[in-house]
Amino acid sequence: MIQNDAFLRALRRQPTDYTPIWLMRQAGRYLPEYNKTRATAGSFMKLAMTPELATEVTLQPLARFPLDAAILFSDILTVPDAMGLGLSFAAGEGPKFARKTDNEQAISALAVPDMNRLRYVFDAVTTIKKALNGHVPLIGFSGSPFTLACYMIEGGSSEGFPNVRKLAYARPDLMKQLIHINAQAVAAYLNEQIAAGVDAVMIFDTWGGLLSSVAYQNLSLDTMKEVLARLNANAAGEKVPTILFTKGGGQWLDGMANSGADALGLDWTVDIAQARQRFGGKVALQGNLDPLVLLTDEKTVAREADTIIHAAGVQPGHVFNLGHGIVPQTPPENVAVLVETVHRVSREMRLE
Amino acid sequence: MIQNDAFLRALRRQPTDYTPIWLMRQAGRYLPEYNKTRATAGSFMKLAMTPELATEVTLQPLARFPLDAAILFSDILTVPDAMGLGLSFAAGEGPKFARKTDNEQAISALAVPDMNRLRYVFDAVTTIKKALNGHVPLIGFSGSPFTLACYMIEGGSSEGFPNVRKLAYARPDLMKQLIHINAQAVAAYLNEQIAAGVDAVMIFDTWGGLLSSVAYQNLSLDTMKEVLARLNANAAGEKVPTILFTKGGGQWLDGMANSGADALGLDWTVDIAQARQRFGGKVALQGNLDPLVLLTDEKTVAREADTIIHAAGVQPGHVFNLGHGIVPQTPPENVAVLVETVHRVSREMRLE
Repeated sequence: MIQNDAFLRALRRQPTDYTPIWLMRQAGRYLPEYNKTRATAGSFMKLAMTPELATEVTLQPLARFPLDAAILFSDILTVPDAMGLGLSFAAGEGPKFARKTDNEQAISALAVPDMNRLRYVFDAVTTIKKALNGHVPLIGFSGSPFTLACYMIEGGSSEGFPNVRKLAYARPDLMKQLIHINAQAVAAYLNEQIAAGVDAVMIFDTWGGLLSSVAYQNLSLDTMKEVLARLNANAAGEKVPTILFTKGGGQWLDGMANSGADALGLDWTVDIAQARQRFGGKVALQGNLDPLVLLTDEKTVAREADTIIHAAGVQPGHVFNLGHGIVPQTPPENVAVLVETVHRVSREMRLE
Repeated sequence: MIQNDAFLRALRRQPTDYTPIWLMRQAGRYLPEYNKTRATAGSFMKLAMTPELATEVTLQPLARFPLDAAILFSDILTVPDAMGLGLSFAAGEGPKFARKTDNEQAISALAVPDMNRLRYVFDAVTTIKKALNGHVPLIGFSGSPFTLACYMIEGGSSEGFPNVRKLAYARPDLMKQLIHINAQAVAAYLNEQIAAGVDAVMIFDTWGGLLSSVAYQNLSLDTMKEVLARLNANAAGEKVPTILFTKGGGQWLDGMANSGADALGLDWTVDIAQARQRFGGKVALQGNLDPLVLLTDEKTVAREADTIIHAAGVQPGHVFNLGHGIVPQTPPENVAVLVETVHRVSREMRLE
């Protein structure tokens, strides 16, 4: 049993005593203890691939802040790496694949990877769950089929992913072939995480917002729906709550709310009051403080957090989060202020 | 009198025989003749600051393609340059200012520039109007007060403009002071362009989409409204049609449609069929092909253009354009196919 189940209750739109909070990239470079563990490990992938180290860094932010959920320490690109594309992280750079998957031959050669190649992820889930000892829920995650395709086509990160957009327009057939394989792989991957014990899963569609409205629907949202429809119940036979996050997807919340997801992540550009009003009866909403607010001062952090808590309101179904990942320059003291403010103000609002 | 007034009629939501088209950055690096003129001139700013050269490059795309409007060749950063911030363009890099306007002292020192320092822009308008000889309308433009502030605060271009967002949250008072000066400068600048003879004006809010919904309203949309409210009639005593474009603003079209602008620019992520349905009775809409479609092949260009023309429909008030500026790698042949397709298909649709 989970002792602090506020996060899971909020995802299910059940009442909670306060608004639960966790932060995208809460285990990461803004924490000195993370940098120390990473320096000792030698690389990011070593951390992700060693269950004991992944457990250590997953728990670090929880030791500092009374966060309401832990999130598996891993990377969205583990899945294409398991497809044999040769993932590496050069120092100070983004991810790189040894091979690009940007033509008919490369896409035809792809297959859903053997999940045993991702055993280190599921082992990390088991180890983290043991270490958490029921304190808070553990979130599993994956990149969306389209977002994985973005990195696979470009061979790494890229400003505006031009080759992805070109392929989407010129060869929608190839694009669909690629994302269909990714969708099967992502579903299998999340099902193994569920079997290993995660309490909720989140799909990160970091780049869906680059697409035209029609292409978003066909290439990203539809494949996320396919993934959601394939998810299994957990060992107790219960449906695991799901969160869908398309960065830049504020225009498409209507379609996302009808995707089958229990909750939607909102980036910081979305008017959360309006979104709660329009979609709060159908899905929980997670968000949506601009992560750069955490680079200002404690007073500003508290004020901006307060604004979002009031905009989101007290009706069940709000999980506080940032609108995107926490940035490395964030002072941990500001995170402490944020968590304290969210808990305190949201408790007070429920007593008013 | 303007011979081809399809563009102006569409902005006023009056019937036209076909859908008019022009392209953001239609005079630019994808044209060999532009590169030749620029190489001879020596620099981008030399082109912009020499009315004869600005006229030459403004007319180049019209000599190749039957476009329905010309747009003044200039840069959105001429206004902060006239404020004395020292604009330069290093080869292969973006714009740079000699000084950043990112603190109380620098912001307090700012003033609306003497419009005589921008005389070269208004002279270019006069020269271009003479050269166009009433063939098609000429569009004048400015950056939005907020978008100008972005470059001024960062001292140039920047991924995600982090210092802008930090200032907006931590010191909204300073941010408002800065954009208020910009709003006055932009209004004066557009009024001088109108006096010199432009037939329509467009406000480019390239970075408003980086803001939270509340901050967009307060810092970008409200100041654009202020600019629109300050615009004068032209020499004939007529209101000049206005276009407002916030890239990434698809969520905020409702507010934009109530800004007083005659038309809204749409980036390629917006569902134009839905936008026409919701806002077409109030404003004209301009857009919205992904500029990267022009990097594919002629068949794809024609198909994607056809899709947008059909989505936008035949009711008055659609100007075809890209969802952002044309990219330098664009083959001019694909632009020819685009213009031909838009004109032909939209004519056929009106005869059906």
